[in-house]
Amino acid sequence: MRAYDLILKKRNGESLSAEEIKFLIRGFLKGEIPDYQMAAFLMAVYFRGMDVDETVALTEALVDSGKRVDLSNIPGVKVDKHSTGGVGDKATIVLVPLAASAGVTVAKMSGRSLGHTGGTADKLESIPGFKIEMSLEELVEIVSKVGAAMIGQSKELVPGDKKLYALRDVTAVVDSIPLIASSVMSKKIAAGCDAVVLDVKVGSGAFMKNIEEAKKLASLMVDIGSRFGIPTTAVLTRMDQPLGYAVGNSLELIEAVNTLKGEGPEDLEYLCIELGSHMLKLCGDRRDPSAIKEDLEKNYLKSGRALKKFREIIAAQGGDPSFLDNLDKLPKAEHIRYVYTDEEGYIIEIDAEKIGRAAAILGAGREVKEQRIDLSAGLIIKKKLGETVKKGDILTEMHSNNVGTFEKAEELIRNAFKIGSNKPKVPPLVIQTIG
Amino acid sequence: MRAYDLILKKRNGESLSAEEIKFLIRGFLKGEIPDYQMAAFLMAVYFRGMDVDETVALTEALVDSGKRVDLSNIPGVKVDKHSTGGVGDKATIVLVPLAASAGVTVAKMSGRSLGHTGGTADKLESIPGFKIEMSLEELVEIVSKVGAAMIGQSKELVPGDKKLYALRDVTAVVDSIPLIASSVMSKKIAAGCDAVVLDVKVGSGAFMKNIEEAKKLASLMVDIGSRFGIPTTAVLTRMDQPLGYAVGNSLELIEAVNTLKGEGPEDLEYLCIELGSHMLKLCGDRRDPSAIKEDLEKNYLKSGRALKKFREIIAAQGGDPSFLDNLDKLPKAEHIRYVYTDEEGYIIEIDAEKIGRAAAILGAGREVKEQRIDLSAGLIIKKKLGETVKKGDILTEMHSNNVGTFEKAEELIRNAFKIGSNKPKVPPLVIQTIG
Repeated sequence: MRAYDLILKKRNGESLSAEEIKFLIRGFLKGEIPDYQMAAFLMAVYFRGMDVDETVALTEALVDSGKRVDLSNIPGVKVDKHSTGGVGDKATIVLVPLAASAGVTVAKMSGRSLGHTGGTADKLESIPGFKIEMSLEELVEIVSKVGAAMIGQSKELVPGDKKLYALRDVTAVVDSIPLIASSVMSKKIAAGCDAVVLDVKVGSGAFMKNIEEAKKLASLMVDIGSRFGIPTTAVLTRMDQPLGYAVGNSLELIEAVNTLKGEGPEDLEYLCIELGSHMLKLCGDRRDPSAIKEDLEKNYLKSGRALKKFREIIAAQGGDPSFLDNLDKLPKAEHIRYVYTDEEGYIIEIDAEKIGRAAAILGAGREVKEQRIDLSAGLIIKKKLGETVKKGDILTEMHSNNVGTFEKAEELIRNAFKIGSNKPKVPPLVIQTIG
Repeated sequence: MRAYDLILKKRNGESLSAEEIKFLIRGFLKGEIPDYQMAAFLMAVYFRGMDVDETVALTEALVDSGKRVDLSNIPGVKVDKHSTGGVGDKATIVLVPLAASAGVTVAKMSGRSLGHTGGTADKLESIPGFKIEMSLEELVEIVSKVGAAMIGQSKELVPGDKKLYALRDVTAVVDSIPLIASSVMSKKIAAGCDAVVLDVKVGSGAFMKNIEEAKKLASLMVDIGSRFGIPTTAVLTRMDQPLGYAVGNSLELIEAVNTLKGEGPEDLEYLCIELGSHMLKLCGDRRDPSAIKEDLEKNYLKSGRALKKFREIIAAQGGDPSFLDNLDKLPKAEHIRYVYTDEEGYIIEIDAEKIGRAAAILGAGREVKEQRIDLSAGLIIKKKLGETVKKGDILTEMHSNNVGTFEKAEELIRNAFKIGSNKPKVPPLVIQTIG
C-alpha cells in the first residue's frame, strides 16, 4: 500500500477501505507518512467527503492512538455529553451535576476555549482550588465516589487527534464534516462512556452555520456511535444568539450556578433539561419525555439536588464549594463599561460570533493556543432576540482588566446587535433530535 | 499575508491576486512556506482550478526562480517546440533539423522519459558521443553557429518547477491543467524563445485522455504565451496509438533518421511537416499553410537538407554523425522476440499507454527517476489502427537485453491490441489548432 495511491483514490472520488484509512492514519501518526501527503489527503477529503465506513475506520485509528478510560467497574450506564461549541455555552456545568443527581454516571472531559467559543475547562478553572487536570485513575476514582467528574481533556487519550488537528488547523481543513465527526467521537469513545448525548449547535455563533450541514454532522456522529455500540443522541440547537446572557469564564460560572439554584436564564435551563432527559433516556428511563423533563426540573433542579451534587463534585476535585453561597468570591474584573443603544425597536439579530469575539478581546478567550485567559473578563448581554429596546438602554455590560480593550469590543458588540421595528419570530431553541 | 488565508481562499473557490500567488510560490521556494501548506494549496487548486491571471502569476514566479537564456544576440525568430508527451513520439528529433534547415532558429531543451512516455533527451543519448548536457553559454554558441541545438533540460532554468513538481508528484496533483500549463510555459519562457509551437497530445498514450481537457490545457498555454508576448500555437493531436512504429530510444532514433531520409512512417512525417509549418508561420512566413507544407516536404525533408542539418547539429554537439550512414552502429538489444496474433480481422484499438509500459518493462523506460535506461531496448509495432491481420501475423517485435522481461511485456502488448471484424474509421491525426 502506498500513500500516493490512496491520495489519488480519494481525490478521484473513490471510497477507501478501512484498512487503507488505517494505513494512512497510523502511518501519519508514526511519522512514516509525511505531513505533506496527509495535507493533500485531507484537502481531498474536504472536497470528496468520506462515507460512514471510512469515518468509522478513521475514528478507530484515532481511538487506537492512545489510552481508553476503563469505567467498566463503575456500575450503571456512563453517559457522556458533548457540545460542538457555541458562545455562552455553559450547559455542561449545569447538566453534569443535574444528570448525576438524577442517577446518571458522567465522566466528563472538556476542552479549552477555541476561537470565538469558550471552553468548559477554562470556565471550571474559575472555581477556587478546583483541579481540572488529573490522571485517568483519579478521574475513575472520583466518578466511582461521586457519580460524576468534570476534567480537562486528557493528553493520554487520542493523541492522534491532536496531531491531525494541528495539521488541519494550518491547512484550512478544519471544517470538514467527517473529520469533525471522527475527532469528536474518537474522544467520546476513548473516554469510556456507554452512551453519548451530542449538542450540535447551528447558527452565527457555532462552527456550523447551516442547518443541513449540521444535520449531516449529527447523523454521521450518531452512525459512528452506533457502529461502536455506543447509543448516541444528537440534539440540533440554535446558536443564533449567546446561550443565556453571560459570556466569559467566571461570569458564565455564576450564571450556571444561578441556574442550578433555579434562577437561571430560560433558554439555558430549557436546554439542560432537554439534554438531561436524553441522558436519562439513554440510561433506560422509559417514561414519557415530558414526564422525565418535569421530574428533572422539579425534583432535581428546583429542589436543589443538582446544586448539592455540584457541591460534592467541587469538593471531590479539590475545590472550595463555599463560593456557591457567596458568588462574590469568584474573580471579578476591575473595570465595567456599558454599551448603550441609541435606537428604538426590537432586537432582530444578535451575531453570536461577534459577541464571542468581543468577549475574547476583553480577555475571556485565546487568540493563540498558549495565551493566558483572564477568568474574570467577559460580557453580559442585557437584551436577547425579540426583546424591545429604547434609546439609552444598555445592550451589553463589558467586564475587563484592560481598559484598552473596551473600544474594539464595543464596536464588535454594536455590529452584532440589529434593531428593527417589527417584532421578530424567535424560533425554538431545539431544531431536531437525531438518533 | 498568511499562507493559511490563501489556502482557505482557494479552497472556497475564490481567485487569488498575482501578488498572493507569488507570495505563496516564492515563500515555498525559499522554504518559508512548508510543504504541507503547499500540498494543501495544490490539492485545492486541483479541485478549484486557476484562472488565466493566477496561472500567469504562477508561471512568472516559476520563471523568476532561475536563469533565463538570452538568445537576443542571435538574429531571427527563435521558435521553441514542446510536446506534452506520448508513446513513440520522436517528432522533435525530426522537426528540429527540419525547421532549422528551413531557416528557423531552435534552441531546444528536452526532458527525460517519464512514466509510460519516452524523453527526447534519452533518445538523443543513443547517438555515439552526442552531448546533451551543456552550459547555457555552450547552447547559445551552438545555436548561433548551426541554427539549432538539442540539449537536456538545464538545471539552471526554472528550479522552482522542479521543486513544485516533486511535491505534486508525491501528492497526486500532477494532472491539474493550470499546474501543467504553468510548468510547461515557464520552461519555454525561461529558454528564451520568441514563439512556441505546442503539440498537445490526447488519447490512450497521452497524459490527457480527453479532448475537452486537452483543449483547455492548449488554450491556457496559448493565453499564457500571449501574456508574456510569446506567440504560441497549440496543435491538438491524437495519441490513440504510438506515433510511428518504434518505441524505445535507439529504435526511435533509427525511425527518426529514416524519416529525415524521406522513408519514415506516414503519421510521423505528417506531424513533423504540420508542426514545422506552424514554426515557419510564427517566423513570419505568410504563405498559404499548404504551400509551406509542400515546400517543407519537398525542399527540406525529401531533398536531404534536413538530414544535412541534423548531421551539423550532431557534429556541433560532439557526436559522430557517421551512424547516419550505417544505423547498425547504434546500440542493439541482444534478444528479439515476437508477439503473434491468433485472431483475424482489423486492428480496432491499440492502447498506447500499455505499449509504452511494455517498452519500459523491456528496459526503455524508468520506473523511478534514478533508474538507468537501456538505450537499445524497446519494441516495434508491426500493425497500426485499421490494418488487417490474420492468424500468425506479428503484432509486435520486442527488443531487450533481459529475457526475463518478455513475458510481462508480451501480456501488456496482447492486452493493448484489440482486433475486430469491422474496419474501423481511423480519425485524422490533427484534431484542432489553437492560437
